[in-house]
Amino acid sequence: MDKLHLFKIGGKVIDKPAALESFLEGFAAIQGPKVLVHGGGVIADQLAAKLEVETRMIDGRRVTSSAMRDVATMVYGGLINKNIVAALQKKGCDAIGLTGADAGLIEARKREAQPIDYGYVGDVQDVKAGKIQGLIELGLTPVFAPLSCSPALGEILNTNADSITSALARGLSARYEVHMLYGFEHTGVMRDLKDPASLITKLDAELYRGLKETGVIAAGMLPKLEECFKALAQGTKHVLIAEAPACLAYARGDSYRGTAVAL
Amino acid sequence: MDKLHLFKIGGKVIDKPAALESFLEGFAAIQGPKVLVHGGGVIADQLAAKLEVETRMIDGRRVTSSAMRDVATMVYGGLINKNIVAALQKKGCDAIGLTGADAGLIEARKREAQPIDYGYVGDVQDVKAGKIQGLIELGLTPVFAPLSCSPALGEILNTNADSITSALARGLSARYEVHMLYGFEHTGVMRDLKDPASLITKLDAELYRGLKETGVIAAGMLPKLEECFKALAQGTKHVLIAEAPACLAYARGDSYRGTAVAL
Repeated sequence: MDKLHLFKIGGKVIDKPAALESFLEGFAAIQGPKVLVHGGGVIADQLAAKLEVETRMIDGRRVTSSAMRDVATMVYGGLINKNIVAALQKKGCDAIGLTGADAGLIEARKREAQPIDYGYVGDVQDVKAGKIQGLIELGLTPVFAPLSCSPALGEILNTNADSITSALARGLSARYEVHMLYGFEHTGVMRDLKDPASLITKLDAELYRGLKETGVIAAGMLPKLEECFKALAQGTKHVLIAEAPACLAYARGDSYRGTAVAL
Repeated sequence: MDKLHLFKIGGKVIDKPAALESFLEGFAAIQGPKVLVHGGGVIADQLAAKLEVETRMIDGRRVTSSAMRDVATMVYGGLINKNIVAALQKKGCDAIGLTGADAGLIEARKREAQPIDYGYVGDVQDVKAGKIQGLIELGLTPVFAPLSCSPALGEILNTNADSITSALARGLSARYEVHMLYGFEHTGVMRDLKDPASLITKLDAELYRGLKETGVIAAGMLPKLEECFKALAQGTKHVLIAEAPACLAYARGDSYRGTAVAL
């Protein structure tokens, strides 16, 4: 099976033009099949504020009203996605910008309104890996916005970028040796964010259970790590959580610092 | 060569949810290779107004400032494009939403700032017809937003939807028997907009010259018709200007009213 590098970059990279430019330069240079998933960043919140669209949160999760879904479609699916694609084209990477609606690639179901109504949020049901492979075999590099689609409703749904990435890793693992690279703002998973020496270089399921029970891993990291273990359980070859430049170093075969997640 | 139906719908269809829904229903049912290009509509102007982005016009043409280009990228490339794609998916049409940046499909050059600086406006230089054919042969139906891309600048550029459609017709004519169907708000080209009996059912180059000289054809129609003749001169099999439902009737092989443009 061919090796495929699946990168996820979050808002912290997207919000800094120099960091984004540098990441895209490195991404364009990675050889072989590759896929990029990007998150949102502050631009959507800024646009929502200007349009007086309320951004409501429940337990740290955004509630996606109809108006907020339109903002996400404009900013994630339009502005951020197409600007990334145009920048990659300049760097010689034949990128194609996609949402879950395009070619029906990421099918989702609108989340039940009970017990909490998160609005227009989708839980991924199916990834059309064969069609993604078809695009890659045309020489294209898929760039995904964090939007899924309910084909039953014919509607765009907002979906967390980590969840989209993990779903892509699971779907693509039947066809590629997938290396899932979660770029984020820290060096990796840390026992203590203030102590660089506390980096966990290898986090397996047993260690994870222990750290979760003792509360060492912060609450915000838990859903990210759950997605990592889901991806590994369904055939993903390797999972790395690290800063975006370290994810690029891993893909190039250079030395890097970060947390390898393993079963 | 396979027949390909290339549809363009404008703001007048996009702005009316029932008209858009009905068009997409008919479009999804058309057999064989097909491509859709959509225009903008009032949504971009409404968003620009809310964001206090100035919409400046020179001689009836929009000047695209950097902020206005962002609005176009959000509304055309995001909101309108992805909602059309999601609606088509529901109707069983395997649509994929695209801008000129995606897969570098529509290469443009930023228009010279002399004599008039229209800002971030692109004039199409090249269409990657082989790659569009590759997507169609994967079973996909391309849906284009009216945005091109300068690969040299790595930037999105605003481009008139009629121009995009004509450029696609010219590029695709080497590979398909292209039927270009310009949907618009009138029955066709009229000698007198107030008199339905004045419809010109066949407009050839000679008749066009005469009507242009005598001022019978309104100024706004001239660039549209120039694009039609450019498409025909470069191999497009058939060009129809008609209301969107009549364009669908033509593609189905049903009777229709409209203006066939011919050399």
